[in-house]
Amino acid sequence: MIEIEILDTTLRDGAQGEGIVFSLRDKLAVTEALDELGVAWIEAGNPGSNPKDLEFFRIASALKLRHAGLCAFGPTRKRGVKAADDPQIRSLLDAGTGAVVIFGKSWDLHAREVLRVEPQENLDMIAETAAFCIAEGRKVIFDAEHFFDGFAADPAYALSTIRAAADAGADRIVLCDTNGGAFPDAVAAGVKAAQAELWGVAEDTAGAQPRGGRSGGGHNIKGDSHHFEAGKYAPLLGIHAHNDCGLALANTLAAVQAGCYHAQGTLVGFGERCGNTALAALIPGLELKMGLRCLPEGNLVRIADLTRRVAEIANVSISDDMPYVGAHAFSHKAGMHADGILKNRRSFEHIEPEAVGNERHFLMSESGGRAAIAERVKKTEPSITKDHPVIAALAAKLKKLEAEGWAFEGADASFEILVRRELGRHKSLFQIAAYRVMSEHPAGVALACSHAWVKVLVGDQYEIAAAEGDGPVNALDGALRRALTRFYPDLAKVRLEDYKVRVIDGKEATAARVRVLIESTDGQRSWNTVGVSADIIDASRAALVDSIEYKLISDMETGG
Amino acid sequence: MIEIEILDTTLRDGAQGEGIVFSLRDKLAVTEALDELGVAWIEAGNPGSNPKDLEFFRIASALKLRHAGLCAFGPTRKRGVKAADDPQIRSLLDAGTGAVVIFGKSWDLHAREVLRVEPQENLDMIAETAAFCIAEGRKVIFDAEHFFDGFAADPAYALSTIRAAADAGADRIVLCDTNGGAFPDAVAAGVKAAQAELWGVAEDTAGAQPRGGRSGGGHNIKGDSHHFEAGKYAPLLGIHAHNDCGLALANTLAAVQAGCYHAQGTLVGFGERCGNTALAALIPGLELKMGLRCLPEGNLVRIADLTRRVAEIANVSISDDMPYVGAHAFSHKAGMHADGILKNRRSFEHIEPEAVGNERHFLMSESGGRAAIAERVKKTEPSITKDHPVIAALAAKLKKLEAEGWAFEGADASFEILVRRELGRHKSLFQIAAYRVMSEHPAGVALACSHAWVKVLVGDQYEIAAAEGDGPVNALDGALRRALTRFYPDLAKVRLEDYKVRVIDGKEATAARVRVLIESTDGQRSWNTVGVSADIIDASRAALVDSIEYKLISDMETGG
Repeated sequence: MIEIEILDTTLRDGAQGEGIVFSLRDKLAVTEALDELGVAWIEAGNPGSNPKDLEFFRIASALKLRHAGLCAFGPTRKRGVKAADDPQIRSLLDAGTGAVVIFGKSWDLHAREVLRVEPQENLDMIAETAAFCIAEGRKVIFDAEHFFDGFAADPAYALSTIRAAADAGADRIVLCDTNGGAFPDAVAAGVKAAQAELWGVAEDTAGAQPRGGRSGGGHNIKGDSHHFEAGKYAPLLGIHAHNDCGLALANTLAAVQAGCYHAQGTLVGFGERCGNTALAALIPGLELKMGLRCLPEGNLVRIADLTRRVAEIANVSISDDMPYVGAHAFSHKAGMHADGILKNRRSFEHIEPEAVGNERHFLMSESGGRAAIAERVKKTEPSITKDHPVIAALAAKLKKLEAEGWAFEGADASFEILVRRELGRHKSLFQIAAYRVMSEHPAGVALACSHAWVKVLVGDQYEIAAAEGDGPVNALDGALRRALTRFYPDLAKVRLEDYKVRVIDGKEATAARVRVLIESTDGQRSWNTVGVSADIIDASRAALVDSIEYKLISDMETGG
Repeated sequence: MIEIEILDTTLRDGAQGEGIVFSLRDKLAVTEALDELGVAWIEAGNPGSNPKDLEFFRIASALKLRHAGLCAFGPTRKRGVKAADDPQIRSLLDAGTGAVVIFGKSWDLHAREVLRVEPQENLDMIAETAAFCIAEGRKVIFDAEHFFDGFAADPAYALSTIRAAADAGADRIVLCDTNGGAFPDAVAAGVKAAQAELWGVAEDTAGAQPRGGRSGGGHNIKGDSHHFEAGKYAPLLGIHAHNDCGLALANTLAAVQAGCYHAQGTLVGFGERCGNTALAALIPGLELKMGLRCLPEGNLVRIADLTRRVAEIANVSISDDMPYVGAHAFSHKAGMHADGILKNRRSFEHIEPEAVGNERHFLMSESGGRAAIAERVKKTEPSITKDHPVIAALAAKLKKLEAEGWAFEGADASFEILVRRELGRHKSLFQIAAYRVMSEHPAGVALACSHAWVKVLVGDQYEIAAAEGDGPVNALDGALRRALTRFYPDLAKVRLEDYKVRVIDGKEATAARVRVLIESTDGQRSWNTVGVSADIIDASRAALVDSIEYKLISDMETGG
């Protein structure tokens, strides 16, 4: 049974984030990912302001969604026209969704100064738009824009706006902190006041709202609604928060604690300005910490994976320190912490990483100690214990390499190769016999250019290849891959995802050592490698070689 | 008067974040930036576990800090030894700071399973370590590690650990959510219980704690402490939160609302796993929303700038959607929002962006940044005002360059050249007619090598020079300098001090654009320049050219 209903607005509010652009294909892929996760609602576009969204809704209606219901989003009718005659409302209905999200103003300042209507007309606009959409067979989710600012400025008016929507028959009343400026105590107070207004319950018992059953998905949304007065319909409350104070998540949790049943956000958290509530942080908090089910049973373990997929489609990176799903969320660097984890996992972890489909990482640094090294080596060779001589040898090697500027904490694949070498289980699959990379800006030419040639030796065969590139490393990467693809055709699928350069000791400036970190992918999984040298080209070469060797070894061992 | 005391731990807990590595130079630069911001305390290292930190404290003791006091960080004594005989505690004192932060365990599970001591010995370790450091003339800030987990597991024991530190004479008791798993209500309850334990006040009035005056900075820290019982010393409470649930900020605010006076975090927010409380989000919240002063008057407007500077030193990017200080924090994309803002700024902004030194951005052209640009241009040409056409031209140029990935925050010399160009006061002193840089690893040779040749034009004379280097940029730098020294002998004194590379968009991997930042010195002063290109060699070339031009111009104007 779903205890908190989730609405994802990645495709609507998320798309208002700076730099976020979705193609039609992208929108369909995001819809499928969110349905796989199992959210109740997907708010997928604003067809009144973006006519192309109608095309999306037409195609999406053919998708076989298992969990989620689609909804279209739009404003209350314009002043001075009937809802039936407002082209934006026509577009909203043309989307053909079972439910629509209507947003209206709950702050008198907005009614007067932005919409430029009298407060009473704003109430009429809300009531008539909701009533019209319901008469046209739609379920209505009413987003009370600027509710908390409005409640602070004129509580009676703010409450009258949600009363107008409720009396018209809206199924959900969503209290919005549109500007993201509210604090959790103000949010809780606003939710309690809304409950008292809509349900006629005293503030001190309002938190005890009976939670509805599974809704969304186009199922009988009214089945969840509670009738506190005979013959009178009372909608359930929702929350929509923004992160301008860094409190979107805390405000959403405070609203749920105060009695909200419906929570909105975007899976990755992006959205206008500082973004929306990140559902990837909200859902684990609700399920694991508060014991409130939001997703179909067993789906929470998919959340790390699906969040990365949606970020990938949106072409944004998930920050490594993102709660629950970030790459570093369960990384232990300090030796003391790694040591503590090995004694008792609870000692330095608030949840099991597996619960959200993430993984624990020990950052392989010499200070991490032998226990952590042994733990990592077990992935490659389960029989090795902390007292095995290879662990001492590895610790000594790590110490030496770290003194030279190597760091394996973000380079698990390079560490794997190091372990295999130490275990005597590594054989080199190719060698670079020679390379030359040239970057030049010849006289009379507008642009700088780079090109490279590489000669590789595989078994007893040489191959030579050349490539141009946007820079010397890009050229070297192209030439190396081209030379090796003759022997290992699967390398054609590999591409670099990320490339980082760190100057290890800036003191010697351009002659300082540089550390290059590379993230590679074959479209299915990603791995990280490292290279260090005084020469950035040579450091890049080392990281590229590790990356390719790791891919080849993994494929051989899995029979790929 | 400072109402909430801020401790920044960027250099200690922040440095435990994955990928964060500070050189000694970096640490000094971060210290100066934090002091400029005006935090009360800078926790700058753990000399017991990292002996190199002692060198930092030795050099840093000569810095003239105006606001902040430095503190060193270390654990309670080891089991079974006297504090005076514990080498880690010796190192802690050797740092020579006026205050030390001692961390001890407040969770019985940690005492038993991680430290492997009996609960009573853990209490003795806390009391003796604090008492010893105080006897050695140090103020003691006690970090009660895992306090909230410990309080949930065994409240009486958790409270006895802070009691032990308080009775020993600690000045601050900092309640830590070390694993980041607590929710705001649990944090508030823990703070109230700690107050009742230490101050003997009932829970329902504890929130009314009188706030202390300005402390930190090596001033009389005990002046803030309150004596609730005759002859008995009661320390003030602090909070240290982690972001594993996305609630570090909310937990810190909840703790302050419950009565904490001291708050810890890292300016940018990075730290172990999901990071620490981001002070760049906490401080504006406390000052602007809760009316609690944390910084010297007038300093809040510097926070966006200084947060970017610290991020730049740490070689991390500030996410664009970071609350208050992110590049998109006041960006308005939806036409409706921009329209609302133009009608009434409050309609879509929770604070004025200027309050934190940030700027409003619209997709259309805007005048937001002109005042700041005019302020900088005045350094070069005092007669220029905000309305001068050159300011509009510069704003447009900056906007275009920033869209291409340029950033002038850490490159004042490049900005100076840009200003001079716009004022028509820049004449180019040399040109690079052509260059070629080669990096190769020929067959049969052990090491990779790089060499470069450069052809320059000065007036109507050409000069060509070549150099070898430890990498392509080092070779290019050598050749360029050699060619120009014939015309400008003073360039022989110039050398590069620091060299940083940032990949601007990791997505396209080695073909992404890179930004190169160079710090140069002539032995007397230092200056910074920037270059951007898809090609790292070309980006370095741009930064090198700016660096040399800046040196030559400055020398001419000062008659040097």
